[in-house]
Amino acid sequence: MLYVIGLGLSDEKDITVNGLEAVRKSERIYLEAYTSILLVDVPKLEEFYGKSVTVADRDMVETESDAILDRASEIDVSFLVVGDPYGATTHTDLILRARNAGVPVKVIHNASIMNAAGASGLQLYNFGQTVSIPFFTETWKPASFVPRIADNMRTGSHTLLLLDIKVKEQSIENLARGKKIFEPPRYMSVSTAVNQLLTLLEEGAEGYTEEAYTKDTLAISLSRVGSDQQVIKAGTLAELAEVDEEEFGPPLHSMILVGSRLHDLEAEFIEAFSVSTKEKSQ
Amino acid sequence: MLYVIGLGLSDEKDITVNGLEAVRKSERIYLEAYTSILLVDVPKLEEFYGKSVTVADRDMVETESDAILDRASEIDVSFLVVGDPYGATTHTDLILRARNAGVPVKVIHNASIMNAAGASGLQLYNFGQTVSIPFFTETWKPASFVPRIADNMRTGSHTLLLLDIKVKEQSIENLARGKKIFEPPRYMSVSTAVNQLLTLLEEGAEGYTEEAYTKDTLAISLSRVGSDQQVIKAGTLAELAEVDEEEFGPPLHSMILVGSRLHDLEAEFIEAFSVSTKEKSQ
Repeated sequence: MLYVIGLGLSDEKDITVNGLEAVRKSERIYLEAYTSILLVDVPKLEEFYGKSVTVADRDMVETESDAILDRASEIDVSFLVVGDPYGATTHTDLILRARNAGVPVKVIHNASIMNAAGASGLQLYNFGQTVSIPFFTETWKPASFVPRIADNMRTGSHTLLLLDIKVKEQSIENLARGKKIFEPPRYMSVSTAVNQLLTLLEEGAEGYTEEAYTKDTLAISLSRVGSDQQVIKAGTLAELAEVDEEEFGPPLHSMILVGSRLHDLEAEFIEAFSVSTKEKSQ
Repeated sequence: MLYVIGLGLSDEKDITVNGLEAVRKSERIYLEAYTSILLVDVPKLEEFYGKSVTVADRDMVETESDAILDRASEIDVSFLVVGDPYGATTHTDLILRARNAGVPVKVIHNASIMNAAGASGLQLYNFGQTVSIPFFTETWKPASFVPRIADNMRTGSHTLLLLDIKVKEQSIENLARGKKIFEPPRYMSVSTAVNQLLTLLEEGAEGYTEEAYTKDTLAISLSRVGSDQQVIKAGTLAELAEVDEEEFGPPLHSMILVGSRLHDLEAEFIEAFSVSTKEKSQ
């Protein structure tokens, strides 16, 4: 059996009891480590499981899936995913490969940012499409996600913004030379995301439209949701741009742009996170 | 501390290890039992926890929250929620009351239908707003959710449909007489939901628009997601209407209306669930 197991959001004990039982009876255990991260490291997981864990990078999952699936019809193999197993296309792809190879698959669900975003106090049924914000490069300021935000705003819906993660990236130079030297991992902070959004606005980038957002759009930052170090802040984009980057703390970060259809209960809940209220009370 | 703990989707072992530890050290444990259900009953939970559990109905949560929060600043109290704690407005409200009463709150996230809908193979970031379908009554055929589906369809997004649950409802007669006699619980099946959708269409109900759906709209049924008894079927609404109700099995059911922006990977994944493919291969 191939167990595809969601680890949830934060630490080694966010796995479900069903998930833990599957891990402990597995002969091989892989941890997918390029679409998200836990707040604990691999040795901590191994200690808790009493088992060794193989870290699987994008290359391995996408090109060596046969090795992952090897003998999985006879023995138990666990493939661990931060969040929920269906949180990224690449996992759906692995499940499909297993299915096509006749390997029985059991998916063990868990929380992911897609539903834990409810920690903001915004009701999940009021969210529209989710968008991902890529890092600007020296030559490219991607804005193709902006029209999707505008789609959501037109119906009054909130938008969850997933912020870019770069793991095991090669510099163009090393890539050209075929050198397998990897850059340190980068996790986009709320500050970077807000600055990128405001840059697209200021430069009137192609694809940007003020139907999507302006500097006065209400936004909510989410840092390390579900952990004891969770930080949530609410303010306009202009206000969040003024917040010291350190206040958002270490990764992972996500953001929400708030739609116009804001209920009283939602508004009351997010008031406690307001950066402008805090300033007033100081 | 008030622990608000998601139980996940299916059985007693879908709780996280963090959640279980919190339950086992709590002095009082409440189970919210009117917005969703697990596939196991309360004695099973109690046996697994080694603790007794108080079932909290809507009345208790909404009008007796003081009793739930009693002394929760000094002792540990667990409030258990099927799915994720932020899955229903009523839980957000309880968290808010706790916050206002100065009770420290720790939320322990879990999977909910809002992210486990990914089991369909449809990518979660392609979902728009979520809608709820209420049961028709003798005098009322609600269609107010239809324009929201149309909003999603216009942007090519998928729509998750949550199907009505009626727990501890009183008949109008018993309500009028003040008799606390409750009807048996009712959980809307996919068959009922499909029939209601097609009735709104056939009758040209106010609010219905063919931009939202027609009988040829592709839909996916989800039964008991995340459990070993999970059943997923894909077909047009007309095709799903022809499926024997028993094939969808016992509750809980949900549905997805598929938007036009269907990726190849999504299409390939849901092919295995197709009711029309099955008919062809018979």
